[in-house]
Amino acid sequence: MEPVDYKQQAYDQLNQDAEKILQLIKVQMDNLTMPQCPLYEEVLDTQMYGLGKEVEFAAKIGLIDREFGKTLLSGLEKELSKLHDAFTNV
Amino acid sequence: MEPVDYKQQAYDQLNQDAEKILQLIKVQMDNLTMPQCPLYEEVLDTQMYGLGKEVEFAAKIGLIDREFGKTLLSGLEKELSKLHDAFTNV
Repeated sequence: MEPVDYKQQAYDQLNQDAEKILQLIKVQMDNLTMPQCPLYEEVLDTQMYGLGKEVEFAAKIGLIDREFGKTLLSGLEKELSKLHDAFTNV
Repeated sequence: MEPVDYKQQAYDQLNQDAEKILQLIKVQMDNLTMPQCPLYEEVLDTQMYGLGKEVEFAAKIGLIDREFGKTLLSGLEKELSKLHDAFTNV
């Protein structure tokens, strides 16, 4: 039996979780929940906080590079900000 | 070189993180931040949410048993509720 590659699984799972947040926000926008709405900000903050905790945990136990974590989070923030701009400029 | 035991590290890290939340709440109480304060509730909710995300992540990639995760979270909730009661009954 191959040993489980926890590192690879950690990277895959974090990428998936980041993608899920992006999808969630897209769905919110498609349903015309305005980005000015405080609830939108709160949902987003909570989701980003949760992903940050996962990244921190994975980095602490040595499954991922801290650099990957930073890049994942800042990349997601950029995507979300692009979405936000696209939505508010319609 | 011994292979890194990611499972053991995951268990240790989660236990540490749960302990940290307990300590944080104790410090808040020692400093007389009232448990009735909405900020207290918010800090606690945020911390529990973060730990829940770590647990979920570790379980998804197969590092920990789901049962351990549930026991950790419910055990912490019980400890916190005991602290809360002790504080409000002074």
